[in-house]
Amino acid sequence: MNPFLSAFICVTVMTTLSNVTAQTRRQPVDLLVLGGTIVTMDETRRIIDDGGIAVSNSRIIAIGPRAEIESRYTSRQRVNASGKVIAPGLINGHTHVPMVLFRGLADDLDLQEWLTKYIFPAEAKNVTEEFVRVGARLGLAEMIRGGTTTYCDMYYFEDAIADETAKAGVRGVLGETIIDFPVADNKTNAEGMAYVEKFVARWKGHDLIVPAIAPHAPYTVSEEHLKAARAFSDRTGAPIVTHIAETKREVDDMVKAKGASPVAYLDRIGFLNDRVIAAHMVWPQGTDIAILKKRGVGVVHNPQSNMKLASGVAPVPRMLSEKLFVGLGTDGAASNNDLNMWEEMDTVAKLHKVFTGDPKVISAQEAFELATIRGAQALHLEKEIGSLETGKRADVLVIDRDTLNQIPLYNIYSDLVYATKAADVETVIINGRLIMRNRRLLTLNETSVKADARIFRDKILRSLSTTGLAK
Amino acid sequence: MNPFLSAFICVTVMTTLSNVTAQTRRQPVDLLVLGGTIVTMDETRRIIDDGGIAVSNSRIIAIGPRAEIESRYTSRQRVNASGKVIAPGLINGHTHVPMVLFRGLADDLDLQEWLTKYIFPAEAKNVTEEFVRVGARLGLAEMIRGGTTTYCDMYYFEDAIADETAKAGVRGVLGETIIDFPVADNKTNAEGMAYVEKFVARWKGHDLIVPAIAPHAPYTVSEEHLKAARAFSDRTGAPIVTHIAETKREVDDMVKAKGASPVAYLDRIGFLNDRVIAAHMVWPQGTDIAILKKRGVGVVHNPQSNMKLASGVAPVPRMLSEKLFVGLGTDGAASNNDLNMWEEMDTVAKLHKVFTGDPKVISAQEAFELATIRGAQALHLEKEIGSLETGKRADVLVIDRDTLNQIPLYNIYSDLVYATKAADVETVIINGRLIMRNRRLLTLNETSVKADARIFRDKILRSLSTTGLAK
Repeated sequence: MNPFLSAFICVTVMTTLSNVTAQTRRQPVDLLVLGGTIVTMDETRRIIDDGGIAVSNSRIIAIGPRAEIESRYTSRQRVNASGKVIAPGLINGHTHVPMVLFRGLADDLDLQEWLTKYIFPAEAKNVTEEFVRVGARLGLAEMIRGGTTTYCDMYYFEDAIADETAKAGVRGVLGETIIDFPVADNKTNAEGMAYVEKFVARWKGHDLIVPAIAPHAPYTVSEEHLKAARAFSDRTGAPIVTHIAETKREVDDMVKAKGASPVAYLDRIGFLNDRVIAAHMVWPQGTDIAILKKRGVGVVHNPQSNMKLASGVAPVPRMLSEKLFVGLGTDGAASNNDLNMWEEMDTVAKLHKVFTGDPKVISAQEAFELATIRGAQALHLEKEIGSLETGKRADVLVIDRDTLNQIPLYNIYSDLVYATKAADVETVIINGRLIMRNRRLLTLNETSVKADARIFRDKILRSLSTTGLAK
Repeated sequence: MNPFLSAFICVTVMTTLSNVTAQTRRQPVDLLVLGGTIVTMDETRRIIDDGGIAVSNSRIIAIGPRAEIESRYTSRQRVNASGKVIAPGLINGHTHVPMVLFRGLADDLDLQEWLTKYIFPAEAKNVTEEFVRVGARLGLAEMIRGGTTTYCDMYYFEDAIADETAKAGVRGVLGETIIDFPVADNKTNAEGMAYVEKFVARWKGHDLIVPAIAPHAPYTVSEEHLKAARAFSDRTGAPIVTHIAETKREVDDMVKAKGASPVAYLDRIGFLNDRVIAAHMVWPQGTDIAILKKRGVGVVHNPQSNMKLASGVAPVPRMLSEKLFVGLGTDGAASNNDLNMWEEMDTVAKLHKVFTGDPKVISAQEAFELATIRGAQALHLEKEIGSLETGKRADVLVIDRDTLNQIPLYNIYSDLVYATKAADVETVIINGRLIMRNRRLLTLNETSVKADARIFRDKILRSLSTTGLAK
């Protein structure tokens, strides 16, 4: 045999054998995300250039340089993220998702007028299980497009919202409202508590849904019912979602009625603990922040909603320096008017700079933390989500870096917070599953989501015109 | 002849004749925009459902119901806007367009540190005619995508910026900087004034470009040079673009140095008139607003830049109630970090609500006015642009109404200000010419615009690493 030929055959056979060996050595996984700059948000805030993530059974099983991940894992399902940014899914810490159906219905009003003249009547006439499902689908579609992978909700018919959320493949801490007046789904506290009992039992332990009890606020729920909500949470482990100290008026009224700030009052009645998620906290008084810290309460800041309703500016820089668990939320789209976490990040950094007069306050990196790892802490889910780390749930974004508004790039956090838009999110993975790929929604039919919402719009307008409220 | 056939022939001939007559009766125009809801921003703020616009020789020659426009005009060039919103092009009243190349280079710093440690050194090492051309093209592409049809600029090598702006088909009030220290294009005031002389002579009377003189600020230009700028403006009719009262420190320094606020000082030296366009005006003192009103000065508010640099909150509600000409701007992308007028509109409404504590302040409609007709007033161009009216220049946007973030729609101004995103702009017409159609840029090559910008990014980073400034 020609020695060159024999050498050639020998090399070929060896290469093939070594490929086979490498392939058999490589562990098959569900999904590989390869290439791109990974913003991990882990404890060291590691950035991995040309990185890779291996996902199996809904979790990240390895993260590191692409070459290393590719040499150890194989998958039929791959996302090519070369030239993109890979980041943890965003966490919208507070919303009322079906209220997207009221987006733009009544704006530029004060909270009291807005609620009592428009929102409550509109809700009384329109909120049904079907309304909630249609609104949830519209809001979920908008959130997925914008890279929100987890949201914390408070509304009515929360069981239907959980059902829609699970179907859409989105993660949610979903709180069924408890309030001391008749609402769409429950007319009495007893009915509400019975609903929550069933709701929590149904969803407890679900991979995506964390069912919660949501006593609306200390001024709309009696002491007795707040204590019952806390007892329910103690017994079931369900988180407690609530609004605290949103307006100055709420604080003043509470001081008059109970001789204490809302936080101090809630602490006195034994309501606060490390399962409580408190939205707004615009007006903490005296030692309130220390109480919240001591009790391990999570706080969710909603800058755009607080601005639009003129509620005030929460002392977030102080909360951060006192190491409170603080996240970021959009609030409902009726008071925002979108579910866009990119704009909340941009706003939170800018608002606190001008409000404190200190342009160094809330850096771009801190703003991004509020929407990811700190947001996870605020929802008491930091062991599961909020960063890209081995062992955590695979809630991952792939973000286009090639849009005009992002060029050039000098600092990754500046880019993410001050320049990236919701429309730049390209691919969304939640719990290891592809939910949006190359800007195409995979779990929701966008056309019918929109069509259904438009039908409800017409119903809402008709319902309000009979009361003379339509503008 | 078969009577049916003869009747058929007769009808056919008559129909053909009547079509010919109708067609000969219909006036041929350059462009028709048909269907869609027109938000005119005219004096009565008329909204036209299923409207139409006829454009000829760069101007709107008719606007009204679609059926009426279609019956009177014909054109080979048509934009179908059915189901969309048709609005005036947005006016970005203040920016430094080439600074997009510094987007995200240095953030979360105070104005003084940001300018002296980062921006001035970066400019000293990088700003050339080629730099401003590349930066201008990137900024123009971003602005077109976001529906900005007119912008007011202040930078160096403004002649090159004018050239790029005219090539891109965008309207600009473009001010060549006059400043009392050596800068990239001119080393002395004499050089600067000679540049401006040639620059204004070259572009005066251009359809798109309004050349201007831009004395940087009262604290960086001497009284003598400010007076010379004003004399130049008197002689040539060129507008004067400047920064006034951006920071409290500027005001305090001016009071110490001149015994008057910046506005009072400028008025005393005879600088202010109805060709002046004053950016920022965060800190008007005493009777400053009355002076500005009396002199007919245009003021441009830059909410996001003022927030990010912690400059303060301009008293815009008071300016509006005193009927000042106020527009809205992004400022340079190095302090924003984008050229997105939709986010400025959203921010201006929300910021002033929370800052004044009054949620009714700056309604959605007023915010939209600031970016359109009031912005035109601030640039002293309200006779030409800012609204969709017969006789005005055809600067027109067609905006997609079918994106998830805009559904449902109850109030058109709420939708435009609180829910519409830059990415929702579909088609852009400037001076009667299609500049973007169905989200495709027609006057700029997006791929090379981005590639050129990335080359400059690398140059900028290298230039700063030698001074140890790169982060």
